[in-house]
Amino acid sequence: MSQFKRKKISVIGSGFTGATTAFLLAQKELGDVVLVDIPQMENPTKGKALDMLEAGPVQGFDANITGTSNYEDTAESDIVVITAGIARKPGMSRDDLVQTNQKIMKSVAQEIAKYSPNSYIIVLTNPVDAMTYTVFKESGFPKNRVIGQSGVLDTARFRTFIAQELNLSVKDITGFVLGGHGDDMVPLVRYSYAGGIPLETLIPKDRLDAIVERTRKGGGEIVNLLGNGSAYYAPAASLVEMVEAILKDQRRVLPSIAYLEGEYGFDGIYLGVPTILGANGIEKIIELDLTEKEKAELSKSADSVRNVMNILA
Amino acid sequence: MSQFKRKKISVIGSGFTGATTAFLLAQKELGDVVLVDIPQMENPTKGKALDMLEAGPVQGFDANITGTSNYEDTAESDIVVITAGIARKPGMSRDDLVQTNQKIMKSVAQEIAKYSPNSYIIVLTNPVDAMTYTVFKESGFPKNRVIGQSGVLDTARFRTFIAQELNLSVKDITGFVLGGHGDDMVPLVRYSYAGGIPLETLIPKDRLDAIVERTRKGGGEIVNLLGNGSAYYAPAASLVEMVEAILKDQRRVLPSIAYLEGEYGFDGIYLGVPTILGANGIEKIIELDLTEKEKAELSKSADSVRNVMNILA
Amino acid sequence: MSQFKRKKISVIGSGFTGATTAFLLAQKELGDVVLVDIPQMENPTKGKALDMLEAGPVQGFDANITGTSNYEDTAESDIVVITAGIARKPGMSRDDLVQTNQKIMKSVAQEIAKYSPNSYIIVLTNPVDAMTYTVFKESGFPKNRVIGQSGVLDTARFRTFIAQELNLSVKDITGFVLGGHGDDMVPLVRYSYAGGIPLETLIPKDRLDAIVERTRKGGGEIVNLLGNGSAYYAPAASLVEMVEAILKDQRRVLPSIAYLEGEYGFDGIYLGVPTILGANGIEKIIELDLTEKEKAELSKSADSVRNVMNILA
Amino acid sequence: MSQFKRKKISVIGSGFTGATTAFLLAQKELGDVVLVDIPQMENPTKGKALDMLEAGPVQGFDANITGTSNYEDTAESDIVVITAGIARKPGMSRDDLVQTNQKIMKSVAQEIAKYSPNSYIIVLTNPVDAMTYTVFKESGFPKNRVIGQSGVLDTARFRTFIAQELNLSVKDITGFVLGGHGDDMVPLVRYSYAGGIPLETLIPKDRLDAIVERTRKGGGEIVNLLGNGSAYYAPAASLVEMVEAILKDQRRVLPSIAYLEGEYGFDGIYLGVPTILGANGIEKIIELDLTEKEKAELSKSADSVRNVMNILA
Repeated sequence: MSQFKRKKISVIGSGFTGATTAFLLAQKELGDVVLVDIPQMENPTKGKALDMLEAGPVQGFDANITGTSNYEDTAESDIVVITAGIARKPGMSRDDLVQTNQKIMKSVAQEIAKYSPNSYIIVLTNPVDAMTYTVFKESGFPKNRVIGQSGVLDTARFRTFIAQELNLSVKDITGFVLGGHGDDMVPLVRYSYAGGIPLETLIPKDRLDAIVERTRKGGGEIVNLLGNGSAYYAPAASLVEMVEAILKDQRRVLPSIAYLEGEYGFDGIYLGVPTILGANGIEKIIELDLTEKEKAELSKSADSVRNVMNILA
Repeated sequence: MSQFKRKKISVIGSGFTGATTAFLLAQKELGDVVLVDIPQMENPTKGKALDMLEAGPVQGFDANITGTSNYEDTAESDIVVITAGIARKPGMSRDDLVQTNQKIMKSVAQEIAKYSPNSYIIVLTNPVDAMTYTVFKESGFPKNRVIGQSGVLDTARFRTFIAQELNLSVKDITGFVLGGHGDDMVPLVRYSYAGGIPLETLIPKDRLDAIVERTRKGGGEIVNLLGNGSAYYAPAASLVEMVEAILKDQRRVLPSIAYLEGEYGFDGIYLGVPTILGANGIEKIIELDLTEKEKAELSKSADSVRNVMNILA
Repeated sequence: MSQFKRKKISVIGSGFTGATTAFLLAQKELGDVVLVDIPQMENPTKGKALDMLEAGPVQGFDANITGTSNYEDTAESDIVVITAGIARKPGMSRDDLVQTNQKIMKSVAQEIAKYSPNSYIIVLTNPVDAMTYTVFKESGFPKNRVIGQSGVLDTARFRTFIAQELNLSVKDITGFVLGGHGDDMVPLVRYSYAGGIPLETLIPKDRLDAIVERTRKGGGEIVNLLGNGSAYYAPAASLVEMVEAILKDQRRVLPSIAYLEGEYGFDGIYLGVPTILGANGIEKIIELDLTEKEKAELSKSADSVRNVMNILA
Repeated sequence: MSQFKRKKISVIGSGFTGATTAFLLAQKELGDVVLVDIPQMENPTKGKALDMLEAGPVQGFDANITGTSNYEDTAESDIVVITAGIARKPGMSRDDLVQTNQKIMKSVAQEIAKYSPNSYIIVLTNPVDAMTYTVFKESGFPKNRVIGQSGVLDTARFRTFIAQELNLSVKDITGFVLGGHGDDMVPLVRYSYAGGIPLETLIPKDRLDAIVERTRKGGGEIVNLLGNGSAYYAPAASLVEMVEAILKDQRRVLPSIAYLEGEYGFDGIYLGVPTILGANGIEKIIELDLTEKEKAELSKSADSVRNVMNILA
């Protein structure tokens, strides 16, 4: 077998986020992509995959993209991205949401463990901390190979809003978040910059507070606008950045939902922290000195995660 | 005003194809993008635009993307891409489809002529030959600035199928079509190659015929798989390739739906022909010597276009 | 004239840096490139341009690249990059270097003013602060359109060394310098980060000091290794980043050598400061609060520039 | 060991072509790059590598680039590109050139076989057919892993000249050559197209003949212009395209110098033929039906190769 065999990436869930993730992966020629959904969705999944494939000659990428409902087709994947799961619908209790998605995660994790025992898993499904934990437990994979996404997306939104506020290139804005997704996000504004200049010196406090608040509710803002559905471009792009960091062994400093065993004073939970992503998945969790206020916020975020974990069957 | 003012591209219609087109344009930093839809769709359109914008920091592009239902926001666009229109639904007559989309095209063309009188227009809406003609007449723009898309997409599908058949890179497969979209497509297999080698010497005739037939029905294949909706990745990529050719003055040889005034023996209709796309839009129509069989097929394709034009109000 | 006419970028000086700059500009399809040198170098300049052009089909770029010794060929350039000039040779006094290069700058500036009166100029020639000043005076262009390069390169070196030290992606390292090039560089380590985390918390002070010192002498390190000649890959990449920021109106936050009229307490000199680069060239100089130590270092850097300016004829 | 370990590419010879090859490989993030030259050139080699590395933060690539004169540093390379060797100097006999470069090839091949026994080798050194043969014999590697470059470059030049002649995008011009490099080139004009249209129908025969002749002498044209040295941009780009095809398993249809065992009626020589390049190096030699004239030209080209092989020690 040649050492140049293409990498294989499976994306579980062929909804908007899963499909967009598959397309962005193929565009970057990171490997061949298998898009997976349940048997009832097999044809639409195949249709999306074929449509993407047909964009290849024009966009100039060589990557095979296939749709399937059969996990055998994911065999020996190098990376698996999980976007499957239901969204919370009006009238649905949080417990119902958690338990339904937990069931899906367990089933998906078993299939991954069976067919791709050496793969790395990145989870997007909400509530993402608890769902990543579920996949970790069910797969039996080591913690460095089971990772959740939330901070890359939160940071991307924060950077977008700051770039608009200052009318500057997004390339020069950096942001930093800890903790959970959305309302539980702990934005470290003091670690966020425009061209290296601390944002606090460039933007009045009330505007900065408003932007932080907007970032926290960034997912909801899109949901409200769309009316029916949720964001998928930025979430997909965030997943792809994490896949690329691992697959190209870039050792990027990116926020991940990582399994903590003592770091930041927490144990046995998945929580959003700064990490180094490289060939070994989460290669390191970076521990920062936090202020008392930040510690309190992170603790509150961890409590939210534990509350959800308590619902898990 | 600096000569480096960003180019402005408006995309009319924020459905899957319009939205994907907007995203691919922004990814390539071809300019700022305005995504337009009707007032009832204003919020979803804004939601999609914002979601795309939030992917910018992660994908590394600087481009503003906005959603609107107000054509004033498209003012002074350099290029306008029209994806708006309805798809044919079960039970709908072709005449109804044509007349509804014609009405939409007229309205859109008036807005473009009013707000962006120097723009270049690329039309995707079906039936694309007649719809491009409608936009041409209603806008009053010169023929080099009103262009329809179909051949880039048909060729992309053909290339995809050939690459699969031969297990080769899509980068080395070229294809060539004349005439209308889909069933009316006139594929010039003798002008299609793998690495410069004529396909006829590489693929048995029956297989090649089957691939041509699959290409002709390529749109329907996706529609059937999706069950609800039609292709958008490959169509969007095709539109973007045409935009890029014009905007970067690449003088690409690409099939376009162009207004014929004597070329190939036709006059006063829009038909798919090989063109040179550059800073002046359609810079030239390339006339090829055709075999009698090809002439007959092209003539049949032109008849189809005329039949649809006869329905136009 | 179509609004899509290609941008035109002239690169003065076809040595290693000039040639590499031309190639990197073409790769990014930022416009057509004219590479210029003195009549004695006309043929080699043409040869390099042709060789680059012949790489286009393989690298996939559409950009014309031409070599010339005739400034008429640069007419109506949008941006002109100046890399021409001699390097200091053993036994040559600094005054000789300055006066020789000043003479070259004057001549080049006159040609630019004559043939491309609306262009933007970026200067690399050393000593770069004084040479940028010379071009500014001789061209008569407004200050926003005459810009010197040094900080992008110094920062790139600093980022490289930090990425090596921490074994992290260069994508996540940011750096910040003020003042002159090389020995006069004022690195603001407190504005430099890895993944947003201040470097001072990640790297021991003595190591950080050593890296700053290595950055200061970064040009000399390459000169010593090469034995004959000086760096050109990173300098060319730095020039291209500045051109791209202007040409795509990115409003990047990048260090530039800018003409100061009161900023940072200096008047009538060109000095390295943080700027916003966009469609209007230097759109803004960003003034930071400096510590007393930083002020003193910047003042020393300004003194060096004034000393060189005093040598100017 | 993670499956995501970076690929390793060694480039032997740190002259202009070798250095440019290393830079273009790093730009594409195809792997980490080791640039190798003789001990006397160790410092300049290290200097070039460091300069390239310092361009990484600005160009946005993550790839380690190192310079060395110690083959131990190339250990476990995945691909090795050989650009080392001397150029023919005035007064030097062809036999001297061949024997000197043969000696270099033997030494290099032994080092590669010793340190990177599973690597793939691409040879650029002239006379390239005989030098690729030498490396093949000396390394003991199977024929699919020892490949020479000439046709990608010849084709690139041909495409450039045709694009200029027709004022069209290079993206739409394809070309095709068989046989040896330069004067021995057998251009198959009937397999060369602009947008799929045979060149013979677009360009008068005398102009086409002139372009073929100019392509044949394309290397000499650059040598004559430069006055001192030979082309390196287009050769480096050509090598990189071949590396990428293998490393990404693209199954590109590219002309390679391949070891023939019966194909085209030749046995036991390396000659330029159309091949499929993928994960296994040369995955297939494509045999075309040739006209009598083409057969005669290819035979003459093979004779030239044999004449050089007869000089080999």
